[in-house]
Amino acid sequence: QNVVKEQLLKLVEVPSLSQDGVPLTLAANISSLKELDAALANGAEGVGLFRTEFLYMDRSRFPTEDEQFEVYRAVVQKLRGETLIIRTLDIGGDKQLDYYELPEEENPFLGFRAIRFSLERKDLFKIQLRAILRASEYGDVRIMYPLITSIDEVRDANAVLSEAKRELAAEGIPYDADIQAGIMIEVPAAVAIADLLAEEAAFFSIGTNDLIQFTLAVDRMNEQISHLYEPYHPAILRMIRAVTNAAKSQGIPVSICGEIAGDVNALPIWLGLGIEELSLSAQAILPVKDGLLRTKAADSRKLLEEMFRCKTASEVRALASQFHAEAALAPGNVQSLL
Amino acid sequence: QNVVKEQLLKLVEVPSLSQDGVPLTLAANISSLKELDAALANGAEGVGLFRTEFLYMDRSRFPTEDEQFEVYRAVVQKLRGETLIIRTLDIGGDKQLDYYELPEEENPFLGFRAIRFSLERKDLFKIQLRAILRASEYGDVRIMYPLITSIDEVRDANAVLSEAKRELAAEGIPYDADIQAGIMIEVPAAVAIADLLAEEAAFFSIGTNDLIQFTLAVDRMNEQISHLYEPYHPAILRMIRAVTNAAKSQGIPVSICGEIAGDVNALPIWLGLGIEELSLSAQAILPVKDGLLRTKAADSRKLLEEMFRCKTASEVRALASQFHAEAALAPGNVQSLL
Ligand SMILES: [Mg+2]
Ligand SMILES: [Mg+2]
Repeated sequence: QNVVKEQLLKLVEVPSLSQDGVPLTLAANISSLKELDAALANGAEGVGLFRTEFLYMDRSRFPTEDEQFEVYRAVVQKLRGETLIIRTLDIGGDKQLDYYELPEEENPFLGFRAIRFSLERKDLFKIQLRAILRASEYGDVRIMYPLITSIDEVRDANAVLSEAKRELAAEGIPYDADIQAGIMIEVPAAVAIADLLAEEAAFFSIGTNDLIQFTLAVDRMNEQISHLYEPYHPAILRMIRAVTNAAKSQGIPVSICGEIAGDVNALPIWLGLGIEELSLSAQAILPVKDGLLRTKAADSRKLLEEMFRCKTASEVRALASQFHAEAALAPGNVQSLL
Repeated sequence: QNVVKEQLLKLVEVPSLSQDGVPLTLAANISSLKELDAALANGAEGVGLFRTEFLYMDRSRFPTEDEQFEVYRAVVQKLRGETLIIRTLDIGGDKQLDYYELPEEENPFLGFRAIRFSLERKDLFKIQLRAILRASEYGDVRIMYPLITSIDEVRDANAVLSEAKRELAAEGIPYDADIQAGIMIEVPAAVAIADLLAEEAAFFSIGTNDLIQFTLAVDRMNEQISHLYEPYHPAILRMIRAVTNAAKSQGIPVSICGEIAGDVNALPIWLGLGIEELSLSAQAILPVKDGLLRTKAADSRKLLEEMFRCKTASEVRALASQFHAEAALAPGNVQSLL
């Protein structure tokens, strides 16, 4: 194990390219400034998902604008020019606040969450957006709205963003006027209207955990049915392809987050689709980079075509494992050194 | 109100056609033999959805094969040759049994439900299928599996069905060997692979209530967010179109059930898409027929094209209301007699 770890660490400075030279940015998911250190030690190229809800949890009141600003600024400064994507508050579902009573819900995953909360409490939303805007003076900061289901929600959120900008401008506080606002694609409706959303959003990040849950109607935390939670389901592949095509046709970038992004076997899917970026937990970055260095984008495209001919998840999975097993044997592969 | 009701009752014997002569079957949703009477009094053309879970609820043990058979046979005999679609047990979610403990779930709508339960308890599933098969000797009985998410589930369910048939044959008990087995399309994954499912299923019924819930990630029973439950969301229209096209390309019929099927404003959507059948609660049948008689399929197709150019649900809604208001003024319309 230590041998592997040591070998993997040698990859930190290696550019993140497929064997045939196609770049795939490996950004990090973080929840705090502290987690950024681990991410950078593992060679993260920027932060693809800063989960800000942890700034709101385990405390006794909502964080102030200044408190948030300090954290966002510290993170982006540590990134030295690399991109920081800040996801606005994604509370609700299984994430609760000690100091604010969210309604009791029969089905919290299908409930009052994320952007729904922010658009209901625009006062709190604006405080967060002001803090993010102020941090945007210090580096490449971008905003990401979670759980978007409609064009209306993007427009409503952007209206609050505009208001926050106007306020800051009136107060003489500097911010990046061209800050990008993108969205998470994690609700099936967003997939179905991805072409329309691509006109309103600066970028997409496909939140595979929630997307798979909603698409398959499976709570992955529910042990009784967790075997039905299946990232390799043909429906999931098709939906990710549809989103990618919609993004490409509007010329906006698309990245993948969620657990499946850290699954080395899924690499040919991203390479085959022409995805530009993955956002990963710190520990997943180097194993994925290791796999990437041994995988050809050209082969991935061919494999993906085969995957799209499969009718069941087990057929897709079998193709992915076989492909990975062959790639893992390529000379110089860290996993193969064992 | 009584005038309207009287006028509507005159429509019971009127064929269910659009103003320009396109047929749209108006079948009934029922939960019991008793509900069938109300449905037939309202001119139901067959039963599009027999919710069998009510045979399992409010009692102290699972119903026996004979108990089920008696009910299914009584229903189909009363239908005198019209079709009876029996949905297999759709328990779980918000429907519990007094005598069988289902697991406590954080998100029951995304949980152990419907076909998932049946495929886990194949013993109970086979008892129900045997009862349905026996009833198929007495009329046009069809089977429908709820909450289908994958090809595997359809195949697994059909394997149990084959076993039930083999058993009955061995026991010398008659049944319709060509009984049709169709599926509900109510999970987004099923929409995404509708073309593949259409190869395995004899018919589709789009369960709009659940489909909208999962697609929008909105529990419609949750008051805090019920305003986000939006049947006229462009994503929903697109998904229904995709399913309809998949069904047509395989030559299998598709019907619509769920609350939106009873919304007269939605009629041009079904006519525009070329849907053959709606399944409705007894009270909805005649108002929908009344609307149908005043609506032209040709105009509906044009309206639907306009709807598909809309980016938001409110635009779609506005088109639907305006169209309906105009159709309602057509001479002879029952609503217009007030
Ligand atoms: Mg999410
Ligand atoms: Mg349902």
